[in-house]
Amino acid sequence: MFTKETYVNRRADLKKSIGSGLLLFLGNEENGMNYEDNTYPFRQDSTFLYFFGLPYAGLAAVIDVDEDKEIIFGDELTIDHIVWMGTQPTLREKAQRVGVVETRPAAELSKYLAKAVGKEQLIHYLPPYRAEHRLKLLEWLGVKPGAEQPSVPFIRGVVNLRNYKTAEELVEIERACNVTADMHIAAMKMLRVGMKECEVAAALQQVAQAAGCGLSFPTIATVCGQTLHNHYYGHTVKPGDMLLVDAGAETEMGYAGDMSSTICAGKTFTTRQKEVYDIQVAAHSAAVDALKPGVAFKEVYDLSCRVIFEGLKALGITKGDPYEAVTAGAHAMFFPCGLGHMMGLDVHDMENLGEVWVGYDGQPKSTQFGRKSLRLARPLEPGFVLTIEPGIYFIPELIDYWKAGKRFEDFINYDKLEAYRDFTGLRNEEDYLITEAGARLLGKKIPFTTEEVEALR
Amino acid sequence: MFTKETYVNRRADLKKSIGSGLLLFLGNEENGMNYEDNTYPFRQDSTFLYFFGLPYAGLAAVIDVDEDKEIIFGDELTIDHIVWMGTQPTLREKAQRVGVVETRPAAELSKYLAKAVGKEQLIHYLPPYRAEHRLKLLEWLGVKPGAEQPSVPFIRGVVNLRNYKTAEELVEIERACNVTADMHIAAMKMLRVGMKECEVAAALQQVAQAAGCGLSFPTIATVCGQTLHNHYYGHTVKPGDMLLVDAGAETEMGYAGDMSSTICAGKTFTTRQKEVYDIQVAAHSAAVDALKPGVAFKEVYDLSCRVIFEGLKALGITKGDPYEAVTAGAHAMFFPCGLGHMMGLDVHDMENLGEVWVGYDGQPKSTQFGRKSLRLARPLEPGFVLTIEPGIYFIPELIDYWKAGKRFEDFINYDKLEAYRDFTGLRNEEDYLITEAGARLLGKKIPFTTEEVEALR
Repeated sequence: MFTKETYVNRRADLKKSIGSGLLLFLGNEENGMNYEDNTYPFRQDSTFLYFFGLPYAGLAAVIDVDEDKEIIFGDELTIDHIVWMGTQPTLREKAQRVGVVETRPAAELSKYLAKAVGKEQLIHYLPPYRAEHRLKLLEWLGVKPGAEQPSVPFIRGVVNLRNYKTAEELVEIERACNVTADMHIAAMKMLRVGMKECEVAAALQQVAQAAGCGLSFPTIATVCGQTLHNHYYGHTVKPGDMLLVDAGAETEMGYAGDMSSTICAGKTFTTRQKEVYDIQVAAHSAAVDALKPGVAFKEVYDLSCRVIFEGLKALGITKGDPYEAVTAGAHAMFFPCGLGHMMGLDVHDMENLGEVWVGYDGQPKSTQFGRKSLRLARPLEPGFVLTIEPGIYFIPELIDYWKAGKRFEDFINYDKLEAYRDFTGLRNEEDYLITEAGARLLGKKIPFTTEEVEALR
Repeated sequence: MFTKETYVNRRADLKKSIGSGLLLFLGNEENGMNYEDNTYPFRQDSTFLYFFGLPYAGLAAVIDVDEDKEIIFGDELTIDHIVWMGTQPTLREKAQRVGVVETRPAAELSKYLAKAVGKEQLIHYLPPYRAEHRLKLLEWLGVKPGAEQPSVPFIRGVVNLRNYKTAEELVEIERACNVTADMHIAAMKMLRVGMKECEVAAALQQVAQAAGCGLSFPTIATVCGQTLHNHYYGHTVKPGDMLLVDAGAETEMGYAGDMSSTICAGKTFTTRQKEVYDIQVAAHSAAVDALKPGVAFKEVYDLSCRVIFEGLKALGITKGDPYEAVTAGAHAMFFPCGLGHMMGLDVHDMENLGEVWVGYDGQPKSTQFGRKSLRLARPLEPGFVLTIEPGIYFIPELIDYWKAGKRFEDFINYDKLEAYRDFTGLRNEEDYLITEAGARLLGKKIPFTTEEVEALR
């Protein structure tokens, strides 16, 4: 946890930006897997962590801007809870650690909110992303599930603070990135033909856990890298395969790292793999070189798309003008996702608040396939932390779908493409901080080119 | 997955036991950790797995007993889903694997249920244990959250099938138990003074994952074993510590193993540790020897409690008549939990359906501290799979609480007990099948006595 001043100041800044009303913060609850008491690892809501710092289930808080009050609601432990789950500080002690003086029993929150409703006070809440949030908004505010109306001023107030990482946050993020790098290096060193994907996934988790970290998202460790979020670990690694690893550590305070690497199953990549890998490296490097304040990230995305398109054109897979192709969206056959995203207390930072606010500053998103998955587009500013992760994917289902629809026949050589339908996919991903001068890599450098990866094999 | 006949037969048996009405099965959904798409590992509902076998999110099913229909509701994947998450069989293909002919889009379930309500058909549902279940029951049946009325005939019908493990289930459970044993043996071999608890927890997870298994519950690996469900892994193991490990594997089909072991930090246990450990071994062995059809498990619990009480009496910690002490509940100072629980598709099998039905056959539970935590009490029958896990714990908070209340001063030597308040706690746990003749250990034997543990250190 940071010092109490950090949380006091964050709340003061937020209050100033909102002006009036009551801000409701829902802390997260324990979630049962197959019965109530067999719980998933607890994860506190990130906005709750940002303003109230406390990593305990069963809490909620309000900032009553009109009454100038901050209250944390929660219950003390019973002896049964202590026997089963261990002791904790009292609610008052917890609150004091983050500079909050007033605490009340959990049951009093509904009364407090009812009073606010009674005096027609504006109650701000954030978008629910768990069923438990919907149940609470229903119970406490009578909001019908699915008909929630989250507060845009609250969202923007939070985004305008959390998007700019402070020095103390950067220390945490860099720690997450260093553990993340160690995870990838461990994978590069251990991978052998004949291993199962799950063995690599398990080893990555062990590196994170032994460093006192969790995972910032479910690990991807797959020989089928063409599926972007592939969480299946049942394949055995064969000669000639590439293992795509996308994994990150999360510090105890909740800050994330997020890197990807693509590793040859044997000692070296094949010529065909190198040719495609080099294109991705070029797209990645072009994107990193372009990072600096004032540059819109959607321009960086377009740039990397064009590099990929041009590279594939040299291989005969694409054809025509790269600028026109990328504008039309033909590149999305090979790169159907975004180039990167904000990262912080969430690996996709504040995704629950809406990418339009976090990554687009309220501007509309494209609806074009591929481009619509770009999570970040706005002009970059110092303090932004983001990922760079271009990839090249050959997705058999997408090839068949587009080919059947005769899509982009002016830009794609489908005959040539057929020879790559078993290629799978590859990606490298790094984390950067936008500085006044440009950008700084976060965490230690992991092998990036085919030569660098092969040197570790 | 088992053959389709298994699922067809299970549903037929259930239908017979219910007689009339409509049985609603809620498959589980993906659950977001800190935003919707950053999901916890998916876990299907166990009753859904038992009757419909399909480990996919977003499914529901009905068995319409009156109309003699079985329908699985769900949606096909979009191209976006395939690009991000990979392909899956079609809903029809999935349904066929478990012998269900009729499938419908997810959105049609609410209409189907509305029609059933319209014709005053009895709709049976099971107790909700996730917020998402409550939202669905609200949306589909207008049931107010918290005011659900689960169907007792449905619960009893499920329990009366799932409580008796079949040969093919036992193969799965035994596989889970063997991986679980490997996890414990790995912990015994790797533990060293100076390690952090999280390193052991990580290694256990790796053993499970590398065997293609998950965890059946969050691992306990703690030097503070007196806290029964301690999920903190931040301590460094010191000379003289004992590490209490409670961990289990879950097979891909969802079957659980669950074992505990207590490991000396150094090469050997101290004399004081051995004295208490031996009492626990005696209680454990007495319980195992008593296992056979017709014996009520609450009698086995009482037996083990008396052995613990007698053993502590020999050390001067307790006094008075063991039978009277255990009847009064004084043993719960040292053994405040149950002796064991049913195990199957859930590590605490069917805990979500209610222990009163699963472990008590509808008989009331005790409200006495300690005894109320006994999850299983009913007479044993062939086919039951259960854990045996007596433990001895010295819980400072409980010592202070009872001492201040002058509780059981006739049975507890509080002066002597003070010398043990830093002892922490220990437990050994094994999994057994009740057979016609008695009981059979499931999975390979793990070191059990102090001598056996020391031999691996």
